[in-house]
Amino acid sequence: MTLDALFQPESVAVIGASTHAGKIGRAIMRNFIEDGFHGRAYAVNPNAEEVMGRKSYDSVLDIDDDIDLAVVSIPPKFSNGAIQDCVEKDVDCVIVITSGYKEIGEDGKKRSEELAEILDGSDTRILGPNCIGIFDTHSGVDTLFVPTYKLERPEQGNIAIVTQSGALGATVLDMLAEMEVGISRFVSYGNQEDITEVELLDWLKEDDKTDAIAIYTEGLSDGREFLKKAREVTEEMPVIALKAGKFESGKSAVVSHTGSLAGSYEIYQGAFKQTGVLEAESLEELFDHSRALAYNEPMEGEKVAVITNGGGLGVLSADALEKRGLELAEFSKSTKKKLREIIPSYGNVENPLDLLGDANSRRYKEALDILKDEDNIDGFIIIPLLQLLPLESDVIDTIINFKESTDRPVVVSTAGGEYTKIHMKNLEEKEVAAYHEPEKAASSLESLYNYGKWKERSGKN
Amino acid sequence: MTLDALFQPESVAVIGASTHAGKIGRAIMRNFIEDGFHGRAYAVNPNAEEVMGRKSYDSVLDIDDDIDLAVVSIPPKFSNGAIQDCVEKDVDCVIVITSGYKEIGEDGKKRSEELAEILDGSDTRILGPNCIGIFDTHSGVDTLFVPTYKLERPEQGNIAIVTQSGALGATVLDMLAEMEVGISRFVSYGNQEDITEVELLDWLKEDDKTDAIAIYTEGLSDGREFLKKAREVTEEMPVIALKAGKFESGKSAVVSHTGSLAGSYEIYQGAFKQTGVLEAESLEELFDHSRALAYNEPMEGEKVAVITNGGGLGVLSADALEKRGLELAEFSKSTKKKLREIIPSYGNVENPLDLLGDANSRRYKEALDILKDEDNIDGFIIIPLLQLLPLESDVIDTIINFKESTDRPVVVSTAGGEYTKIHMKNLEEKEVAAYHEPEKAASSLESLYNYGKWKERSGKN
Repeated sequence: MTLDALFQPESVAVIGASTHAGKIGRAIMRNFIEDGFHGRAYAVNPNAEEVMGRKSYDSVLDIDDDIDLAVVSIPPKFSNGAIQDCVEKDVDCVIVITSGYKEIGEDGKKRSEELAEILDGSDTRILGPNCIGIFDTHSGVDTLFVPTYKLERPEQGNIAIVTQSGALGATVLDMLAEMEVGISRFVSYGNQEDITEVELLDWLKEDDKTDAIAIYTEGLSDGREFLKKAREVTEEMPVIALKAGKFESGKSAVVSHTGSLAGSYEIYQGAFKQTGVLEAESLEELFDHSRALAYNEPMEGEKVAVITNGGGLGVLSADALEKRGLELAEFSKSTKKKLREIIPSYGNVENPLDLLGDANSRRYKEALDILKDEDNIDGFIIIPLLQLLPLESDVIDTIINFKESTDRPVVVSTAGGEYTKIHMKNLEEKEVAAYHEPEKAASSLESLYNYGKWKERSGKN
Repeated sequence: MTLDALFQPESVAVIGASTHAGKIGRAIMRNFIEDGFHGRAYAVNPNAEEVMGRKSYDSVLDIDDDIDLAVVSIPPKFSNGAIQDCVEKDVDCVIVITSGYKEIGEDGKKRSEELAEILDGSDTRILGPNCIGIFDTHSGVDTLFVPTYKLERPEQGNIAIVTQSGALGATVLDMLAEMEVGISRFVSYGNQEDITEVELLDWLKEDDKTDAIAIYTEGLSDGREFLKKAREVTEEMPVIALKAGKFESGKSAVVSHTGSLAGSYEIYQGAFKQTGVLEAESLEELFDHSRALAYNEPMEGEKVAVITNGGGLGVLSADALEKRGLELAEFSKSTKKKLREIIPSYGNVENPLDLLGDANSRRYKEALDILKDEDNIDGFIIIPLLQLLPLESDVIDTIINFKESTDRPVVVSTAGGEYTKIHMKNLEEKEVAAYHEPEKAASSLESLYNYGKWKERSGKN
């Protein structure tokens, strides 16, 4: 497949690789030289002899090697010329960072039309223009032109991020890195004047490094194509989408941002529903849910067990579940009998299960061991308040082990300062989604439940 | 007022101050000795001669000093006896940390009845039982028995936190500390067998250190009293409430947690509405909104300006505002004319105002200077994406100065890793509320708008 060259190129040309510090092309060149890219990297810049110690070519055509991927970061008046060279050179994919195409109005539209003519009849594929390109934790491709002190890069993980907005995508990457959430591939596709979001989804569905896809879209390239293809993707793995430009007020902002037509939100909702694409209500929900979806199997029923050492958080969980049409699981008699043996006499053994303020990690382990055998539970919310003195750090290992021992979804809610955050990062590293409040934990389980229902329904069709 | 002794005592007795490491009473005693409490502190423990180098008294009655505040942290079978001594000693207020009262069922109920008899006819007031007491950033009172590595303490600020659940309150404190959000007073009131949440609100409304109150409640002490008093509080300052135990499923958990009756949620919603108490939908919203409410004047209209260097975030803001019935402000012709002079020709000067990816802090300053004179704006959402290379750190100062120069609400949305977090903390320290996404910024402005409407309406009555 041609898009392989986007994510896993063996040879790369950076068009606009510069000798000047602060230039985008220089930052991108540096990433290919310094940061774990295993392929061959070439600099293209007719105004330089050398860039970062490497020979600089006048044109991609002068390079005596096949080029899988070119990255174009030069002023818009030169960009189409450089792309023309790539077409002649038969480069597989070109990432066009340059903006100034249809998103800027009349002048840009001409440039976009010219680009379409250049591509007509060629096999070369274009990502963008007006995008920030690719960050791939496996191949080491990193076209993000922001240094890591400003923009941290996530570790390897199983979430793919597909975003129309580059800056927004960069923000998300930075947040995920800070939370120790890993990703597989990140792709910013901007104006999608050639490669579309549907093609990217289609490529990712075959990717064995990816288990869930999060997508930010301002406008789909082709509704009919999306309806046809998206269902095939959601049969393989969950896709969660945040649609921006839902209302009239945001639509004109969309046009000047990525040159897209935002379209009617109702039509989008319909398309998502028909294809099993889950919808996120906000940016935070997009990656809250995508973590749960990537780390867990779908939830097969609505019955949830809540286990905590903080009674108030248990009450809030009950509210959050009921609000979403999920239920508190009813524990069987035998489960309650066993729980009674490990919980002090003044406590109770109902769900939400309050392990009480004096609970240590051993009590957590005993309770989880008992609940593992309770069939009447479809998913778990575990809420360890690490602020309470008797609860030791190793409750985190207990939870990680429990999650690994069951096929049912397990999510965590816990919040606090530096001490708690260290523990939350540890959970994320081990693919246990940890949220700051019960509301988000319940909302993520709802997403797993909705995906479960979709899988069941689509399996029957 | 008697409750002064809770927050600003000059002399304190810790009943249960212990020589044993790990005991709650020892941790509390340590706080009074080591952590900035300016009054006199006495240890009471009949089984010790000395606690942490201080004489230990057999009973509070043996102390040759007036005691403003006693803290009781001993096993439940002894607690009522110690409280009896406090009544005899005419102690103003007693914080009863001890649990094992009505929240544990029959045995506890008897203990609660006995406590009521002890208090009958006395002037001594009880906070709790089954609470974690007070943390006051002004007087230095700190009865939180968790070391600061597990539970960070916030700096001074203008938000008061009133919580029925101690553990939940501790979590919130820890989070706020980490975010550099300051508070005035924190009070955990547990079973409210004597001092009620209404009395606490009533005391706080006169507190010149407090500008907004956040309350977590599982069940109100007395609905009629609340209706009578809460309105007086909201005339002075905003109150935002999170009600737990909204649905049937959570109600039984409430009884065993703080011995409260959760009551009908509809009745609560009515009571909040009638008294101008704002409602939070979740724990995060509780302190998201309380920050906006504490740092800003109420918003007087629905027209919001959005300023950003990340177009996608502008689009999401437009969606989030419209969803809540707020509007994008229409910029006047003269404003647009001025904006056109500072924004590159390929950009536009509509709201959301996209300062474009190459914006530096100077462009932010110029834009905000122009918008400061635009009368058709009721509030501002500023979204600086610090990941983008051209945007320097001093945009934070620009925003802080802008906020200080206007009476209209200003909130920020920005998100990312360690680098961005440092800047967010700086904003919070200067009382500019900073959120992780436009959704939350818009939601907080809605809260300021609702409080503005309430103030306007209640002013007319």
